[in-house]
Amino acid sequence: MRVGIWGGSGFVGGELLRILLRHPDVEVTYVASKEHEGEYIHRVHPHLRGISGLVFGAYDAGIASSKCDALFVAVPFKQALQDVPRIVSSGIRLVDLSPAYRLRNPDDYLPHYKIVHPQPTVLADFVYGLPEVNRNEIKGSTKIANPGCLATAALLAVKGFVETMEQTGELIIDAKVGSSGSGSKASPLNTHAVRYGVVRAYKLGNHRHSIEISSYLCNHHLEHVHVSFSAHGVNMVRGILVTAYLTLKEPLSEGEVWKILRQTFAEEPFIRFIKDRSGGFRLPDPKLTLGSNFCDIGFELLPDGRHLILVSALDNLVKGAAGNAVQCFNLMNGIKEDTGLNLIPIYPA
Amino acid sequence: MRVGIWGGSGFVGGELLRILLRHPDVEVTYVASKEHEGEYIHRVHPHLRGISGLVFGAYDAGIASSKCDALFVAVPFKQALQDVPRIVSSGIRLVDLSPAYRLRNPDDYLPHYKIVHPQPTVLADFVYGLPEVNRNEIKGSTKIANPGCLATAALLAVKGFVETMEQTGELIIDAKVGSSGSGSKASPLNTHAVRYGVVRAYKLGNHRHSIEISSYLCNHHLEHVHVSFSAHGVNMVRGILVTAYLTLKEPLSEGEVWKILRQTFAEEPFIRFIKDRSGGFRLPDPKLTLGSNFCDIGFELLPDGRHLILVSALDNLVKGAAGNAVQCFNLMNGIKEDTGLNLIPIYPA
Amino acid sequence: MRVGIWGGSGFVGGELLRILLRHPDVEVTYVASKEHEGEYIHRVHPHLRGISGLVFGAYDAGIASSKCDALFVAVPFKQALQDVPRIVSSGIRLVDLSPAYRLRNPDDYLPHYKIVHPQPTVLADFVYGLPEVNRNEIKGSTKIANPGCLATAALLAVKGFVETMEQTGELIIDAKVGSSGSGSKASPLNTHAVRYGVVRAYKLGNHRHSIEISSYLCNHHLEHVHVSFSAHGVNMVRGILVTAYLTLKEPLSEGEVWKILRQTFAEEPFIRFIKDRSGGFRLPDPKLTLGSNFCDIGFELLPDGRHLILVSALDNLVKGAAGNAVQCFNLMNGIKEDTGLNLIPIYPA
Amino acid sequence: MRVGIWGGSGFVGGELLRILLRHPDVEVTYVASKEHEGEYIHRVHPHLRGISGLVFGAYDAGIASSKCDALFVAVPFKQALQDVPRIVSSGIRLVDLSPAYRLRNPDDYLPHYKIVHPQPTVLADFVYGLPEVNRNEIKGSTKIANPGCLATAALLAVKGFVETMEQTGELIIDAKVGSSGSGSKASPLNTHAVRYGVVRAYKLGNHRHSIEISSYLCNHHLEHVHVSFSAHGVNMVRGILVTAYLTLKEPLSEGEVWKILRQTFAEEPFIRFIKDRSGGFRLPDPKLTLGSNFCDIGFELLPDGRHLILVSALDNLVKGAAGNAVQCFNLMNGIKEDTGLNLIPIYPA
Repeated sequence: MRVGIWGGSGFVGGELLRILLRHPDVEVTYVASKEHEGEYIHRVHPHLRGISGLVFGAYDAGIASSKCDALFVAVPFKQALQDVPRIVSSGIRLVDLSPAYRLRNPDDYLPHYKIVHPQPTVLADFVYGLPEVNRNEIKGSTKIANPGCLATAALLAVKGFVETMEQTGELIIDAKVGSSGSGSKASPLNTHAVRYGVVRAYKLGNHRHSIEISSYLCNHHLEHVHVSFSAHGVNMVRGILVTAYLTLKEPLSEGEVWKILRQTFAEEPFIRFIKDRSGGFRLPDPKLTLGSNFCDIGFELLPDGRHLILVSALDNLVKGAAGNAVQCFNLMNGIKEDTGLNLIPIYPA
Repeated sequence: MRVGIWGGSGFVGGELLRILLRHPDVEVTYVASKEHEGEYIHRVHPHLRGISGLVFGAYDAGIASSKCDALFVAVPFKQALQDVPRIVSSGIRLVDLSPAYRLRNPDDYLPHYKIVHPQPTVLADFVYGLPEVNRNEIKGSTKIANPGCLATAALLAVKGFVETMEQTGELIIDAKVGSSGSGSKASPLNTHAVRYGVVRAYKLGNHRHSIEISSYLCNHHLEHVHVSFSAHGVNMVRGILVTAYLTLKEPLSEGEVWKILRQTFAEEPFIRFIKDRSGGFRLPDPKLTLGSNFCDIGFELLPDGRHLILVSALDNLVKGAAGNAVQCFNLMNGIKEDTGLNLIPIYPA
Repeated sequence: MRVGIWGGSGFVGGELLRILLRHPDVEVTYVASKEHEGEYIHRVHPHLRGISGLVFGAYDAGIASSKCDALFVAVPFKQALQDVPRIVSSGIRLVDLSPAYRLRNPDDYLPHYKIVHPQPTVLADFVYGLPEVNRNEIKGSTKIANPGCLATAALLAVKGFVETMEQTGELIIDAKVGSSGSGSKASPLNTHAVRYGVVRAYKLGNHRHSIEISSYLCNHHLEHVHVSFSAHGVNMVRGILVTAYLTLKEPLSEGEVWKILRQTFAEEPFIRFIKDRSGGFRLPDPKLTLGSNFCDIGFELLPDGRHLILVSALDNLVKGAAGNAVQCFNLMNGIKEDTGLNLIPIYPA
Repeated sequence: MRVGIWGGSGFVGGELLRILLRHPDVEVTYVASKEHEGEYIHRVHPHLRGISGLVFGAYDAGIASSKCDALFVAVPFKQALQDVPRIVSSGIRLVDLSPAYRLRNPDDYLPHYKIVHPQPTVLADFVYGLPEVNRNEIKGSTKIANPGCLATAALLAVKGFVETMEQTGELIIDAKVGSSGSGSKASPLNTHAVRYGVVRAYKLGNHRHSIEISSYLCNHHLEHVHVSFSAHGVNMVRGILVTAYLTLKEPLSEGEVWKILRQTFAEEPFIRFIKDRSGGFRLPDPKLTLGSNFCDIGFELLPDGRHLILVSALDNLVKGAAGNAVQCFNLMNGIKEDTGLNLIPIYPA
């Protein structure tokens, strides 16, 4: 299958290339970039030198649809809003990695993204692409909105426990994120000297990705749970750890928590459970997911059985972006779900 | 004044030396070490080369009391339990940096430290040494138990808001800590290759320092607040960031939060408030406290006014240990409180 | 083909597993560990959880030879000296990753490894396994001594220029190395707090791997070149950068240097050249090789044409150890050389 | 004494403030910034919050000379060339931290800085300010050009050995530098994600600071020594390690090397020697100098006695910039040389 990348010069574009260039069932025929047309991709993605002789192509929806059977869109939010309608009209299958078509309810864009969504009907055609949540919908779709990286980590952490959460309780999500999560654009706030060694709290209580969690809870009639989603930049490039604090309706035993987890994620190819009594990795840690499509999940149940702390870890550029997008792509196209994604984490690194 | 350090070969010992060797009103006359007696201190603390010709002295309470007017005790918990009674009986003033005499209620040791406290009467003589909480008690004391580093960060974050917290609510404390917080002992879990780049969740929900918070809340008749205290090791050597999630009885405005903070910490020499609209440091960050005795405090109030997120940052070896100990020492001895502690943070580093 | 790992609990063992478990032409049937027999491999290699259900087997040469057609030996130097003769006598093909059988001249062990080599005849049976240097010998061999990681980086840097070096000149090699290069054993010198942020000069002028370079130069009748090989630990886990300073007999032009490089490494699957005029990666950088089997090479020629600075970068656990070992294994066994090794570097990370 | 900073918004400006705000004999009365006039200094230097209520003043030489008795100039090269003549004409004493007036020979600017120096007569009035090299000249001066950070580390490493170097030999200097050495300006090449974990070779063989070394050697009639000065960015914010490879005329013994070092740096307040047989810090390491004005020096002598490897380490923002500038300032003004500079390194950090 011929695939392309629309907006291939960012970190997510580079990661899509890393995965797709080794995907046995696809050929990357096109990588569009506004700024880098005509340049070898390794000028922008220096690690790809010697891997591929691809050159960035013209940023043109017509060319995209002529050269590809499917397209990954990896441009920023506002650019996606401009470009995606044209791409959609060309009939090509696509996975959009921006937030532009993620939220089911167009009204949610104003409070969270400060715009009135200009294309509610286009939005309605998109399927939220988190296979562990809605695999069947993805299979039947031609347009996927890839989840936010933090939302993915948080949703997978809490997924099994929506039935057991207190209906009017609190859901506190405290995320720790590497610097690649903020993209490749330079600013005085993210130079190495300034960003190194920080624990930078931002978007406390109302990170944009919280709406993806809230929507999910609403689908389960938990609209009265108060979701508080905070993020902290820490001193690493890749990786997310989510610590989610839940209050349960009724006490659970540790065995019951395990049972829920196992049922929720039975047969999932990219979910691993970690909860050990010894060693340096008793719970999920992004260090164990580097370069892989895994989302690791673990937990601690407090003695009262009513306070459950869920922990999830993933590589924000893989399961949090490019890897999950390829997983959706595989599902959409009848390709075995883990094709091109059976990547073993690099450790230690 | 002649001061000594009992157990001066760990990171806290080194930090006490860094501060005390430049303290204008003291002379360091004695540094005891079991393992390093007779060695120059710079063999163990390589940064002190050329700063001091001190040699580790004998580990002997009699010598300690003959050589010093006051002693900082920086040995591990169980060692402190053995040594402190002998030191106390020598009559010397002391600041103990271990947890051995921190908890007011001896019964709290069993659940949190897995021992029955062997000396409840010695324990009763100690004053918990957090100047921002109980300065006057410290002034009148001769035996101080220095708080835990995480407890300090958490207590200072929530101190102003105990009156406004919901009586049966949740207090969720999510801490991020550098590797020096685990001490200098080597283990396969904390080698550079293994510990680098982690986000290592540990002691989820019931970190030992939680009891120091709970005790404080109990003193304010908030015994029904559920405290959940979790820690995460992150990729830095020094520093703590605490994110504390509070539910309030009644909604507050941002102005009211500011007013509470200003009243709570009026005139405090080592508390700074950080809450900016722009820049890379809009909230406290341990990066801004390196090497200093500051505890920085900031907050985010959610739109409903009932969810308050407090953030505090400090250097775990200074305000979280050696610096706070010297602050207590100054108070105990009628020395101006910030003497030897007006250290400007090193930035960027 | 059935392959095994003898001593599979270190970082190199983990990396061999990462590669071999995805190698299409092999099955990992055996991983021996003295300390971990009976444990799942993911207890020691936490990133392999969910990847493989392998259990560490008995440390027994007989079992090894019955279970495997080829064996990778990844134990320390002295252990290898004990174990390899027994393994060799079982007739199994092997790649030894220790230094035990690396040096051609048994007399070189005394000055560099402080022992008289106890098995000079076994030593004589081994072929030094650096495909870019002696591919044909490797193809015909059944026993390979894998080069040292620093030696690999240095040899590949200078390989093309032995003919042009001044016969009585200096070859100064200044290497920068990540912490995984020192292995997984804990010590007070390599805890995160102590090892983080260092630039730790060690083995200045006479790193053990220098003998591998000197031997190579001697083979080219350059025994009078003075080799000075120094290493510096820097703040990363994986990666080596070698900066090699050469004095040339006759001035070269930049075009001539390029010509030599291209001829030396024509068709090499794992050598890339990097020398750009702009961007953040104008010369090789270990950051661009993470997780891959590449050795990147670049240079700077000083205006006089007689001073050439060569730079090489690689991942010490891949091209510097496990990847190169698998490359040799492929060659020995008539498998296409890059099988299982077409790994794209992870970037940024 | 009233002092000011001209161009106080960069990292060096921040470090000057950290030192000068605690210097007992000065008052900081003025900090000029083109871009930040009217802002509190802590808006730009977030660590200084709560330390000083200073506001950036107008960028005006007249105001500077009216408000200060001495001025530290911390603007970039070309800006300094514009501004310094006006400042000089106001008669104020100054220490310029840019390269604008560093080189003795105006002709050296063209090859190394790509400009014809526009003010050779102003240049002639400046004294190169490295106290360990030319303390007496500094004492008698009113205009100091502060050395480059790498030049300082290299000059102090080799200073003792110019008499013993081979007249037509090689001097190879291989430096490893933290990211703060490149200043605070943002670029896509120095974002955290891109710059983290690199070993970035740059300016191989002809770093600009090499001319400062060459000039020094020329002063000692060693104009035929070939100086090759290379730099590598490594994963830390502060710090420089220089490894200098020397060939000696005649073999030396280790005792003789020690003797030379001791004689060269007798009584120097900021030079420490490090050469240990055990521990993690057997040679200088920038980790041991963080925040201090020390330059640590060590060495390894190869068995032939003719190859000497010198190692020096310092904090590039202190001894490599602001600290050395204050040291010169003290000397110029008859203040005890180490005043305000007896800063103990922060370790571990």
